[in-house]
Amino acid sequence: MTDRVAVLAHEMFPDRSKTANGVIRYADYEVAAVLDRERPGERVADHLPGVDDAPVVASFADVPGDVDALVIGIAPIGGGFDESWRPDVRAAIEAGCDVVSGLHYFLNDDEEFASLAADHGVELWDVRKPHDDLTVAGGRSADVDADVVLTVGTDCSVGKMTATMEIVEAARDAGIDACAIPTGQTGIMIEGWGNPVDRVVSDFTAGAVEEMILEKGDDHDLLVVEGQGSIIHPAYSAVTCGILHGAMADKLVLCHAAGREAIHGYEDTAIPPVEEYVDLYESLAAPVHEAEVVAGALNTVDVDDDAAARAAVDDFADTIDAPATDLIRFGADEVVEAIR
Amino acid sequence: MTDRVAVLAHEMFPDRSKTANGVIRYADYEVAAVLDRERPGERVADHLPGVDDAPVVASFADVPGDVDALVIGIAPIGGGFDESWRPDVRAAIEAGCDVVSGLHYFLNDDEEFASLAADHGVELWDVRKPHDDLTVAGGRSADVDADVVLTVGTDCSVGKMTATMEIVEAARDAGIDACAIPTGQTGIMIEGWGNPVDRVVSDFTAGAVEEMILEKGDDHDLLVVEGQGSIIHPAYSAVTCGILHGAMADKLVLCHAAGREAIHGYEDTAIPPVEEYVDLYESLAAPVHEAEVVAGALNTVDVDDDAAARAAVDDFADTIDAPATDLIRFGADEVVEAIR
Repeated sequence: MTDRVAVLAHEMFPDRSKTANGVIRYADYEVAAVLDRERPGERVADHLPGVDDAPVVASFADVPGDVDALVIGIAPIGGGFDESWRPDVRAAIEAGCDVVSGLHYFLNDDEEFASLAADHGVELWDVRKPHDDLTVAGGRSADVDADVVLTVGTDCSVGKMTATMEIVEAARDAGIDACAIPTGQTGIMIEGWGNPVDRVVSDFTAGAVEEMILEKGDDHDLLVVEGQGSIIHPAYSAVTCGILHGAMADKLVLCHAAGREAIHGYEDTAIPPVEEYVDLYESLAAPVHEAEVVAGALNTVDVDDDAAARAAVDDFADTIDAPATDLIRFGADEVVEAIR
Repeated sequence: MTDRVAVLAHEMFPDRSKTANGVIRYADYEVAAVLDRERPGERVADHLPGVDDAPVVASFADVPGDVDALVIGIAPIGGGFDESWRPDVRAAIEAGCDVVSGLHYFLNDDEEFASLAADHGVELWDVRKPHDDLTVAGGRSADVDADVVLTVGTDCSVGKMTATMEIVEAARDAGIDACAIPTGQTGIMIEGWGNPVDRVVSDFTAGAVEEMILEKGDDHDLLVVEGQGSIIHPAYSAVTCGILHGAMADKLVLCHAAGREAIHGYEDTAIPPVEEYVDLYESLAAPVHEAEVVAGALNTVDVDDDAAARAAVDDFADTIDAPATDLIRFGADEVVEAIR
């Protein structure tokens, strides 16, 4: 694994740079700089409280000191490569850096990057490229010794990956041998392993989750599976459903963003009443494996003061009839208590 | 398109050769022979009433006359290539035949077959290889002029592809300009086009369906989308869910096999009461696009006499609170009436 990294987040840091933020917050990297050509001179810690600080710079050439890797920290809908990033990726490779990318577009399939990487002896790690031995699920995830918890959501970008990492950290702090099961690019970058479930052959969606659970499930007491999308997402529900049935979780943590009224990017699709999600997830899970929504994780990043956030959390808890909190704002203790 | 074909179905014809049977029954091919090494000397019409007859032979060398293509007519769970089929595929290519395959294993990636095919100037059509321009759904399928009907199922192999083709045929007979939207290998082989939705990148599952609906939806009055799997299938529910949300169907036809008690190949997963499927499909569809189960298609192939089959159909209709029939045994008129 690389140690010191620069994180590319042009024009999206910090509000639309989910991957960058996750890597900065949870991975074992030392972050040398964030690249955002719209914010040179700003500081990471100004935007992401509680993380190690680093400068925001305009391009790879401005990153201070040597770095081992450039991490592509943004993921546009569709997962394409933005050609405006090419000079930075080129510069990184020419400086002897590996490049880590979670895009659908594989850097290894890009002729210029592949050729440059070979010339400079660096690795292009396409996190979203699945391995070749995936297959269909066998319905066996419930056989493992560990308890399995799955984070599920009302929408994309409500904080499932964050909730997963926070729950694992808090569970470990409480003395539980917990392990994250990463299913998306950010989780995989943070953990250093995992199947990119949104990129596998659709028939193998549940199988890709099951493979990870069988691999880790007898070595830990608690697996926390990173959910994806939402079961009513017009584009991504397939992945959500495959993870739900592939994980065969005992317990679900429902993640939601306070104030979200429509599916992100699909404004014609309203967010249904939150209690409907509880029914949908539980009734859809049950024929394969009984699962219960035992806690809620409410993302109140858009709520200004703590009192209003606390009220929103209490309201959310009442609605789903289970303990809830904002894991970042108020800590994960209530959720850990609910899943243990 | 090819005209005269041989259909490979070794050791699986007719009870486990869904693809072969579909091609024989619905495609515009002339079937010269079915290959099944366990049934040489038998006749196709002995097993599949109402189709054009053809001999069953032990190997490609025994196919009478010249054929244009060999169709791989069986699809084991997982979609692998059975090495025992290699001599027949080799012989077909050497005889100048194209080979049509719906396996997950691509013939074009097989060094021997690719090289032989190049030498003999024949095409290997890997039906399940998706095209490169697929992307995420935009939630736009409901914008087309056509009514959209989707066949959904309680399990795999209950007759969704058959129901789709029978409904399209019956609708055309009733004067409706209907078009099938094929989503699986058999449907694509029959129709000669289509996206193999179970083989696309999981994030693009709904998008692959939407692409087809947008392509055909303003040229016809009725689209009948071929469903896949089941919304509670331990392995394949992701594909089912993606099709449900990608199609944005107005009406659903619920397909079931009389007497089925557990998910095919997953005996630990019981088939829930059929009315639960109605609730699950409708409640899962609604947040994206309201859909109603308006008819049922019961596969009574395992029921011996017509009276018992009629009773089973009536029972199924009562359970789902909608008209139902066995489309093969009793015709599709009731279903066409319900969806028009």
